[in-house]
Parts: sequence; structure tokens; C-alpha cells
Amino acid sequence: MHSLTGAIQDADGNITESQQYFSEDNGTFFIRVEFTTALSLAEIIDHIEPVASKYQAEYLIDTVGRKLRTLVLVSKAGHCLNDLLYRQRDNKLQIEIPRVLSNHADLAPLTEFYGIDFEHMRVTDDTSKRAFEERLLEIVETENIELVVLARYMQILSPEFCARLSGKIINIHHSFLPSFKGANPYAQAHDRGVKLIGATAHFVTNELDEGPIIEQNVERVNHKFTREQLISVGQDIESRTLANAVQWFAEHRVFLDGHRSVVFS
Amino acid sequence: MHSLTGAIQDADGNITESQQYFSEDNGTFFIRVEFTTALSLAEIIDHIEPVASKYQAEYLIDTVGRKLRTLVLVSKAGHCLNDLLYRQRDNKLQIEIPRVLSNHADLAPLTEFYGIDFEHMRVTDDTSKRAFEERLLEIVETENIELVVLARYMQILSPEFCARLSGKIINIHHSFLPSFKGANPYAQAHDRGVKLIGATAHFVTNELDEGPIIEQNVERVNHKFTREQLISVGQDIESRTLANAVQWFAEHRVFLDGHRSVVFS
Amino acid sequence: MHSLTGAIQDADGNITESQQYFSEDNGTFFIRVEFTTALSLAEIIDHIEPVASKYQAEYLIDTVGRKLRTLVLVSKAGHCLNDLLYRQRDNKLQIEIPRVLSNHADLAPLTEFYGIDFEHMRVTDDTSKRAFEERLLEIVETENIELVVLARYMQILSPEFCARLSGKIINIHHSFLPSFKGANPYAQAHDRGVKLIGATAHFVTNELDEGPIIEQNVERVNHKFTREQLISVGQDIESRTLANAVQWFAEHRVFLDGHRSVVFS
Amino acid sequence: MHSLTGAIQDADGNITESQQYFSEDNGTFFIRVEFTTALSLAEIIDHIEPVASKYQAEYLIDTVGRKLRTLVLVSKAGHCLNDLLYRQRDNKLQIEIPRVLSNHADLAPLTEFYGIDFEHMRVTDDTSKRAFEERLLEIVETENIELVVLARYMQILSPEFCARLSGKIINIHHSFLPSFKGANPYAQAHDRGVKLIGATAHFVTNELDEGPIIEQNVERVNHKFTREQLISVGQDIESRTLANAVQWFAEHRVFLDGHRSVVFS
Repeated sequence: MHSLTGAIQDADGNITESQQYFSEDNGTFFIRVEFTTALSLAEIIDHIEPVASKYQAEYLIDTVGRKLRTLVLVSKAGHCLNDLLYRQRDNKLQIEIPRVLSNHADLAPLTEFYGIDFEHMRVTDDTSKRAFEERLLEIVETENIELVVLARYMQILSPEFCARLSGKIINIHHSFLPSFKGANPYAQAHDRGVKLIGATAHFVTNELDEGPIIEQNVERVNHKFTREQLISVGQDIESRTLANAVQWFAEHRVFLDGHRSVVFS
Repeated sequence: MHSLTGAIQDADGNITESQQYFSEDNGTFFIRVEFTTALSLAEIIDHIEPVASKYQAEYLIDTVGRKLRTLVLVSKAGHCLNDLLYRQRDNKLQIEIPRVLSNHADLAPLTEFYGIDFEHMRVTDDTSKRAFEERLLEIVETENIELVVLARYMQILSPEFCARLSGKIINIHHSFLPSFKGANPYAQAHDRGVKLIGATAHFVTNELDEGPIIEQNVERVNHKFTREQLISVGQDIESRTLANAVQWFAEHRVFLDGHRSVVFS
Repeated sequence: MHSLTGAIQDADGNITESQQYFSEDNGTFFIRVEFTTALSLAEIIDHIEPVASKYQAEYLIDTVGRKLRTLVLVSKAGHCLNDLLYRQRDNKLQIEIPRVLSNHADLAPLTEFYGIDFEHMRVTDDTSKRAFEERLLEIVETENIELVVLARYMQILSPEFCARLSGKIINIHHSFLPSFKGANPYAQAHDRGVKLIGATAHFVTNELDEGPIIEQNVERVNHKFTREQLISVGQDIESRTLANAVQWFAEHRVFLDGHRSVVFS
Repeated sequence: MHSLTGAIQDADGNITESQQYFSEDNGTFFIRVEFTTALSLAEIIDHIEPVASKYQAEYLIDTVGRKLRTLVLVSKAGHCLNDLLYRQRDNKLQIEIPRVLSNHADLAPLTEFYGIDFEHMRVTDDTSKRAFEERLLEIVETENIELVVLARYMQILSPEFCARLSGKIINIHHSFLPSFKGANPYAQAHDRGVKLIGATAHFVTNELDEGPIIEQNVERVNHKFTREQLISVGQDIESRTLANAVQWFAEHRVFLDGHRSVVFS
């Protein structure tokens, strides 16, 4: 860390925020530093590169506040999409969304109200699924997408696709993982009689609902809640849990640490 | 319900609190009524019995505020026991504890400070385990025990024992069930990188950590928490979750509804 | 209560939900019953009226699920309005909004996207304020408004207006009342260094931010939060706190009990 | 910060944890660093002193895990004391308590069970109050007390006393400050009909219940809660809120920032 702060100081940088974490699980050191400087990006790199090289560190330098180019995938449920769209326009979410891609047409009007392109491609079998993912990768490339958000997108992505965008896909799962993986978590929660229900924002990996957790929230329920009421309470939790995870990712506050995530929130 | 309120009215009863619930899962109707009356218990039963009989209902009549006779089982960890003992002496918990039974001697001084008998029986193999459970049943009988609380008792009770005291044993599990059943839930929680940890008070059944849930609570944690810190945060949650469940049970607010529990809290 | 359940039974009613509360503060008994029946409203009243009359009780009978006619007032901030509009269209909020009235024009497009009339009347002095309130009362009358929601409407309503619609105006205040009444609560919260910030949905009365509280929520913050970040966190809490209060009111679950409110949630 | 990490590096120190904060309110920079080193305290100071001197910084160097010498003041209510005593013996709280001082005798047995001296001095008028505070200062001196904890001590300390131990006295107030300052906060909370009740651990200053807040927690309540039930729920919150604040203080994680506190939790 001292080497890094030295390099930043040499780059006329004034550190305004800094967080670090040493993971004993795998010996990795994580650090995130915000600083102001009059130098150009190239000049900053000249100062940082030798330090990174010495410690064999990966690094990313970005401008504070720059909006991350984000592709949102949805199906029929619009509560998460509505929340993301409202927040990004209200400048509460540091992302720009060039396009929303969906296997259903339902959410086109909402998306277009915010002036964002909506693209609909049906997914009904393996062939159309492959076409969907190919189109998705194409958009990622042509639109310079840095983050893919599954805002209640109800199709399972192929392992190949997940591998290609590893660490860049965030999903919202409508349960407090690792409880109630897979389909119909609210029905499972109802049957098990839990007293709190929750939602989990996590990275997507090959294993269903097993990717590193970024954020979780819960709310209290009781025996009187029907499945419909659990769903209604759950939607609130899903929206804000996903929004928080996306914002932290956009601010480069989320790091992968093996099977876990480090969040400098 | 109207029949019941009628019977109570006929018994000169004045209803001060009432809650009910119809379980669509299995067609059972649950009702809990508190009322004041000048009649004796026998006279009240004379009024209630015909209604119960007509609807083939089970019922229990008790005096509001009567302390439930409770046996507490512990091993080495004393945080839940300390909490239960302090609350019951402070009249915050409507139970009386004639005895604490343990497979370790560690918590004898704390128990005896509160003027409660402590009994230690080692459990090292199947024979001593059987002896422990036989002694337990003996205490339940001779001491008129109405509730057995596993306050971080770390042995698994035999299926026969669980069956004999079905619906009368409450356990505190140190995770947010159904996540992290079985041993070392905090280690499991750490490895999975969850952002909230919790505790669950539940009835004990034959299936490990699968009994109906009575109460759950969680607290926020992050990647920096070591397993030891998770344990420390968790102990707080365990203590108050167990205390709430015990208090509700003592007030006859907890009902079994198949695999779920109805809690009129 | 027994008289009421008897009357409902006589009206061929089958009670599906019931809650009651006796307020010791002022000796009032509150009861809310949901029941199914084949009778008409007039026939139900024939059965209920004698009981109500006998106990000098006020009562209201309504159809479960009927949408309450609701007028929403806003200024510039749209997060609460967006939340209310999305939920009502998604059938998560049992209200219909014939019109949104505002002292600013900013939120017209959002409102109109949901197919709802938006009306803008500037409020710059006492005269325009009086005109605004007169128009408001006119809408309440002509549109059969049953609830007025102040969704971050930033003008103080006149005492006369509050008195005329007493018990029918719900406001969202952006602090955990009674902390930080009045203007700029997030600035006050920042200066005081609180560790939790909150929002309060309450009935509007003559006394500023002193009306009976319907619902409150909080979220954890720390010393690093700027005022802007407090505002951002707070907006989330405001939206869901207001939505819950509105939903409970629409379901006739909220009762005035002097300076407090009874919420059968 | 770079100067400090340089000094620590020169002192053969290996930084294991570090947090910092720049307060824009008053231009103060706060930093807390944990590091391992083979050097002696004197040698460490040799390295740190020049940096501190250059930036006119105050600093404190302590051994990680050293137990802070803590004096606890109580009156009659024992829930917070019980919690502190249990935790410190269970090594969950990094303090040692040489003595408990009280204006009542009630909590002597509990204190002495933990092998800690209990001292009782009645406070009935100004004279006895002055004597109490003089004795208190004497204990602080002779016992090398570093922290005074008011664990539901119900007397108001004199301004002179507060000034002499400024920044070293932590109180638990039984409300969510700044709501409900002063006496009987639960009665105030009941009358106001709040839906959440809380507790606040704060530094004691001359102004009653106005000192910098260290930690706050809340729990949900409803209209059915009597004042006694509010008190019971509140006691839980008080105990853990105070325990957290004391632990963070003992770990030197709490800093005064004018009217606010910085907590590196």
C-alpha cells in the first residue's frame, strides 16, 4: 500500500478515499483509492505501472463518476427495470443504459418512455436461445458494454456465455441465498414457513445461483402472508438490493475474491 | 369463532385480546383468546367444552401470566443460558426453570448464582447418551416440565426422544435456516460470503434443523468479518431470537401448522 | 365483538380475517373484519346497523379489493410518485389515481406516461396558494377523492384545508419523526451525526409533522455519508414507507386513536 | 497518510488494517492503522513522532487486544450491566472492569458473582452527589480508568465532571436520539405512537443527551405495545447498542469530530 500511495503522491495525487483488505483465504491484497490529480491518464499510468509490475498486481484506473455502459436483460416483471431506469435518469445510479434486451415485449413502453432502445427476441428453444446469446454478445461488443444486469431475466444463460463475461454479469435472485435456489423461491419460502424473506444480488457463474454474493436484504413476514404477498414484499427488496449492487459495481467497489466478493461500500 | 366468543360471553368473560388464522394449507382454524372472568376453571370448561366438541377442536385453557415450567439443556456456550436466566429473574420471561441439565460442567456456577439446580451428566457414547435422555425424561415427568429449551445444547437428540416430546422442544440454530444446516454454520456462512447472518429458533423434530420455524433474526456483516467475529455477532442474535421464541411459547402464542408454525405475536 | 360476529353470521357471512384492539388511553374499541357473504350491501347494513347503534359505534363497510380514489400532490421530486404509479399499475397498490396535482410542471411526462391527468398550478404567494387549495377541494369533490397523498409535496397546507380533510391526508416526512421536524431533515441528520436515517408516513394535521404516525422505516448510515448520500438512501425509505401506508389505508387497516394510529397490518 | 505509512514501513511495520476519513466540516483528517512490528513502543514512537509533529497531529499508540480499564456506573436496572459483565468474561468485550460504582445496592450480588468489586454510595442531595463524583474521580485516578460507562446510571453528572472526563464517558440513552430526550423516553414514545423504538450510545457532554452519537439501533413495535412491553423490547436494544459502542471505543475505533463521532467499525 505504501508503494501505491507513494506513486499517487508522486503523480501529484491527493487521496480522498481509500479502502483495503487482505484476504487470508488466498493471500490477495485488495485496494481501492480515489484521488484528485492534474495529470493525464497516461501520466498517471506512468507512475502506477512500476508499482503494479513490482507486485504483479492487476489494476484499473477510471474517472470518478463516469457512467458505466450497462445492458439490462428483462423478461416480463418490470419492478427492477422501472427502479433502475428511474434511478439512472435521476442520477442516483452511475450507469448509462444504451439498450434493454428481452425475451418478451411487455416492457417496451416503459423502456422507451426513458428514451432507451428496447429489443425483443423470442426464446423458445435451443436455437432461439443461441441466437439470443449471440445477439447479446454482439451488443456487448458494438455498444462497449461493461456490465450486464439480469433484472429478473428468467432464462438460464449458457455456461459458455457466463464464462465469456465472467465477473461482468449481475443477477438478482429472489431469495436469501443460499436458501431457496432455483425456481419459485417464494413458494419454497412459504412452504418452509420462514419468518424473513430476502433477495440476493450476485455474480452469475456456471453454477446456478452459486456465484459470489454482492448484496442481500431481508424483510419480516409471518404465517399470514400468502405467496402473492410474499412476492409483493419481495419485489421491493429485489429492486433496492439490485440497485445497490449495480451502483457499487459501477463505482468499482466490488472485487471477486474466489467464491466471495469484497465490497468496499 | 362466533360460537367460541359466545361461550366466553356466557361464561361472563370479557375478551381483552384475540387473534385467529385459517390455514388454507390444511383447513385448520387457529384461535387464541385472552379474557377475564370471575368463573373457576371448571366452570369455564363447562362453557367451552360443548363448542370444542361440536367443532372437534383441541383447546388449552391457562392463566395469563402463569410461568411455564421449563427445562434448559446446555453444553459449554453460556450466552443463551445467561440471557434466559437474567430475563426470567427480571420477570421479562414468563418461565420458571427448576433445573439446567448439561453434558458439561462449565455452566454450573452461572446457573447456581441464580439459585437453580444444575445437573451434569457426561455424554461420550451411545450408552451415556441413552442414560442422559432417560434422565431427561425422568426430570420432565417428576418436575412437570412443559417446555425443553436447547440453549446451544450440542448433542443431537434421538428420534424416539424427539417424538415423545413433539412440539415441546425448542432449539436455537445458529444460522438463518434453511441456509447452513448442521455443523459449523458460521464457517459455512464465511465460506459462502453471505452479507447477513442469522439465527433461527425452531421446534425440534426427527429431521435435523428441519422443524417448524418460530422466529428468525439477522444482522449485517461484510467480507472483513472473520469466523470469530461472525460467531460473536451471531451470539447476540441467537440470544434474543431464542428468548422471543420461548416467551411466545410460554404465552401459548405458538401453534404447529403442519411443517410451519403460527405465531400470534 | 361477539355481537358483531353474531350479526355477520346472521348475514350469512363467513369471517376470513379479523383484528381488534382496545385502546386503554381513551376507551375506544377498534375492530376490522373481512367476510364473504351472498347478501347485498343494504342487507348487510340491516344486520350491522342495530349492533352499531346499540354500542354507538361508527362503522364503514366496503368491498375487499375496491380501489380507493386517490389524489396525489407532488412538487419536483418524483421518486415517491414513480413508485406509487408503478405499483398501482402493477396492481400492488389498491388505489386508482384520477389526477396528479402539482405546483411544478416537472412530473407531467412521468404521470402522463401512466395515462393519468396531470394538473399544474403555480404557488408563489398567499393568493395562488389559496387558489391551489380551492382547486384541490374542487377536485376532491368532483372526482370523489377518498385519500390525498402528499408524495413529497413541499408546500405547507393551510389549517382550514387540513381540518376539512382530517384523517384523509397522508404525508411522507423524510425523517424518523419526532426527530428532525420541518425543513431539511437530512441536513439536520447529518449535523447531528445520527447512525440511522428514516422516513415517516403520517396523517396531516394542523401541527407541522405532528400528525399520527402510520409507518416508519430506517436504514443504517455512517460518518462517511454526505448530505447527498443521505438524501439518496432516504429516498428509498420514503418510497416504500409511503407505499405501505397508502396500501394499509386503502385496505381500511388504519384507524385514528387520538394522537396515535392503530394499524391492523 | 503516505507519510504515516512510510514511517510505519520504516519501523518494520506490516499494516494489517487501515481506515481513514477526511472531515470536510472542520478539515480534520482521521486515520487508524493496525500493524505488526518487532520494534518496541519507544522505537515506534521514534518513527511516528516526526510525522505527527510535521502535521501537528495528535496520535495514540496501543497494543491490539489490550483490555481498556473501565469503570461502570449503574443504578437499579441491571440488564446492561449483566450484558457487559458476561461479555467481558467471555472475552467478547475488550475491557477489564476493576469496579462497579452505584447509587443503589441492588446490583452488588451480580457484580460480585463476576469477581468484581462493587461500591455503593447513596446520592440523595447535592452534597452526596458531590461526594459521589469526588469518589468517582478518585477511582478514575487510582485505578487508571480509561473509560467510564453509564450503564443505565440514572443521575445527571455535573458539568464540571463531564468536562474533566470529556470524550471518556459513554452513556446509553433509551431512545432513538434526538427523539425523546430526557426522562421516560418509552412513555414519550408510547404517547407519540412511533412504530420503531431505539437506543443510542453517545458521549456525555454538558448538554443532556446531546453528546456525539456512537451507535444506534431500533426495533419494530406497534399500537398494541404497552409501555411495559416497550421497555422490555428497549432493554434488548440498549444492551447490544452499549456493548457495541464500548467495544469500538476499547479498540480505539471511535473519534470525536466536533459534534459528531467517526466510528471505524
